[in-house]
Amino acid sequence: MLTEKFRRMTDAHPAPLAALSPELNRALAIIKRGADELLIEAELIEKLKTGKPLRVKAGFDPTAPDLHLGHTVLINKLRQLQDLGHQVLFLIGDFTGMIGDPTGKSATRPPLTQAQVAENAQSYASQVFKILDPNKTDIVFNSHWLTDLGAAGMLKLAASHTVARMLERDDFSKRFKGNQPIAIHEFLYPLLQGYDSVALQADLELGGTDQKFNLLMGRELQKQAGQSPQCVLMMPLLEGLDGVNKMSKSLGNYIGVAEAPEVIFAKLMSISDDLMWRYIELLSFADLATIAQWKQRVADGENPRTIKVTFAQEIVARFHSQADAEKALDDFQTRAKGGIPDDIPEMTLTIEGETIGVAQMLKQAQLVDSSSEAMRAIQQGGVKLDSVKVEDRSMQLAKGQTVIAQVGKRKFAKITLQ
Amino acid sequence: MLTEKFRRMTDAHPAPLAALSPELNRALAIIKRGADELLIEAELIEKLKTGKPLRVKAGFDPTAPDLHLGHTVLINKLRQLQDLGHQVLFLIGDFTGMIGDPTGKSATRPPLTQAQVAENAQSYASQVFKILDPNKTDIVFNSHWLTDLGAAGMLKLAASHTVARMLERDDFSKRFKGNQPIAIHEFLYPLLQGYDSVALQADLELGGTDQKFNLLMGRELQKQAGQSPQCVLMMPLLEGLDGVNKMSKSLGNYIGVAEAPEVIFAKLMSISDDLMWRYIELLSFADLATIAQWKQRVADGENPRTIKVTFAQEIVARFHSQADAEKALDDFQTRAKGGIPDDIPEMTLTIEGETIGVAQMLKQAQLVDSSSEAMRAIQQGGVKLDSVKVEDRSMQLAKGQTVIAQVGKRKFAKITLQ
Repeated sequence: MLTEKFRRMTDAHPAPLAALSPELNRALAIIKRGADELLIEAELIEKLKTGKPLRVKAGFDPTAPDLHLGHTVLINKLRQLQDLGHQVLFLIGDFTGMIGDPTGKSATRPPLTQAQVAENAQSYASQVFKILDPNKTDIVFNSHWLTDLGAAGMLKLAASHTVARMLERDDFSKRFKGNQPIAIHEFLYPLLQGYDSVALQADLELGGTDQKFNLLMGRELQKQAGQSPQCVLMMPLLEGLDGVNKMSKSLGNYIGVAEAPEVIFAKLMSISDDLMWRYIELLSFADLATIAQWKQRVADGENPRTIKVTFAQEIVARFHSQADAEKALDDFQTRAKGGIPDDIPEMTLTIEGETIGVAQMLKQAQLVDSSSEAMRAIQQGGVKLDSVKVEDRSMQLAKGQTVIAQVGKRKFAKITLQ
Repeated sequence: MLTEKFRRMTDAHPAPLAALSPELNRALAIIKRGADELLIEAELIEKLKTGKPLRVKAGFDPTAPDLHLGHTVLINKLRQLQDLGHQVLFLIGDFTGMIGDPTGKSATRPPLTQAQVAENAQSYASQVFKILDPNKTDIVFNSHWLTDLGAAGMLKLAASHTVARMLERDDFSKRFKGNQPIAIHEFLYPLLQGYDSVALQADLELGGTDQKFNLLMGRELQKQAGQSPQCVLMMPLLEGLDGVNKMSKSLGNYIGVAEAPEVIFAKLMSISDDLMWRYIELLSFADLATIAQWKQRVADGENPRTIKVTFAQEIVARFHSQADAEKALDDFQTRAKGGIPDDIPEMTLTIEGETIGVAQMLKQAQLVDSSSEAMRAIQQGGVKLDSVKVEDRSMQLAKGQTVIAQVGKRKFAKITLQ
């Protein structure tokens, strides 16, 4: 009944399930769904048993947010925790943001002004409140307590840990051994993140698996401060449309939460059936029993496409509206019935990098004679992918995707990128 | 004409003497007298050539000062610089003092209050103004600018250097290789010391040879801040009365500047003739030509004791008064003539540690039968060392010292400790 990933985690951290109430068992299953690691489960159970809402911390960059579905894996988990009655501390790391790149070397990380931070926070709110419950969310800014910390507090914080301990962090250790420079302030960031947990008296912190060292720092500093140490829940990085690399804007294998309904819908319809289950586990709010039923239906012979449609509708509705979701489905079905012939050629294109530009793909698929012809066709509105008109000439498609490409009225191809 | 030490330094850093005015040559010779190292001499010459008074920085602990002659080596150099027209920035490191031991492990380093810092500064002033010219001294407190630095400024400061660079410092390197813990805040202290130079716009910083890394940090941070980097003048650690170990209270081989005139006088008279020249080089304000004459006189057969008396008088006068110095000399001569027989036994005692308690020494010298007899004799005022009554039963004597011990009216011994 459980997904493979979830089963793996449950095995690795067996809870004394027998001793728990059904309600607590249910809560634990929801919390652990899709997660990579929970530390320390027994402690979390004790916290849950108190019945008091947990203070759940998650930190976010203060730079202009442009969220994609990969980011929402963690935000979804926050929502699930809210549904279980807990309070989310949505932490915007504006303190370091307002410093920018302290080495002064990176022109791409200019210091943010207070006004920019406020604007970005507003933008975050408008995006994340499509998932989070505003009544159970406190948006907090760490500049509040880190400014008060002062140089003296920073010194004391630095005194709490040794250089050797810090070099245990994987990336530091690798860079140190490889004679790559580590600036001293980089040793302070994990301490600051940990101190945020002290300031917030967090019961639970969420983060990516790559954040494990920093997340555990919160536990250590809370213990030193005489607080009960927070538990740590690590969520995996979501694979992009290619099913291989993590979802990222720069790889082009992403679905932005602000993209148009039909784009989100079409991109979700383009993922492989395997990847669909992974996405459902991490992105759908359907409960585990429902997902198990879906799997059973597919096992019994149903086309996975039906499930994919339901799931894609759910995601479109989340970021737009139920009406948009229904329209996206109607359009999709209409287009599926008409327009595209039944007997279009299928082909597999091998691409060099992780992504390929749409014009280049059309040329490789011989739907056009040249890239410039493709560009013209796009400009004239004559190119569609999965029945959605292509607006962006620089659009990238990722390895692993399958799309139905159309140029003009008559040229079609079902293209799989590998 | 120059002492061996000074000649060594001059050889190591040859200045283009021919090109300099006699006045500049003279100033340089005064600055370099007794110093271990000057960085960078050519830069200092350029600064001196401008004719502008230099801003000369030296940092001191904010803990209750109890200065001994070892500390005054550096303060004497500051005075010589004042006599050359320069301004001394007497920096009291109260910022870290008010933090105490940030690891919280050391009970012996409790945080100082603002009032204690002020009181200690007052105590410093009363001691150092026996050497320094108050009109050319600014007493400054680094809490002024380091508090303003804030947590953000500290982060930026930490970003200016790498972990690898910091591990180049000798003691860090040794501890790191020896798997001994280095707390992260220890990496911040050199940066703060360097930042003090930026805040003070120092032209020259004085420090012990053991401070080289931290002194150079000031240069680096000043360059990064667009300032002309300070020069660095490193003074040696003064040997104690034993002529071997550095002068230190815990080794008992010290002369405190607040000790009584006759104690200072007697202790100085007890040092070896070799050590006398070293002390004269680093502690006397007699000029190099005068010292050369003294050496000539001794070479011509004069008893070095005459020179020692002159020197001891100078030091007593510095920390007490000319009258005290004359009285100390008179007493010494009176005592030398009378009281002590001519034919007292001479002996050499081999001691186990670096020092020996006075009672134990008397017992080993067989002037008393037991330590408790010695204690009683001291309590009754019946014990003198070099004709000075011993008041402190726990008084320590150091290896290398020679003293005339007297118990009661009749028992004498000239004791050399080895």
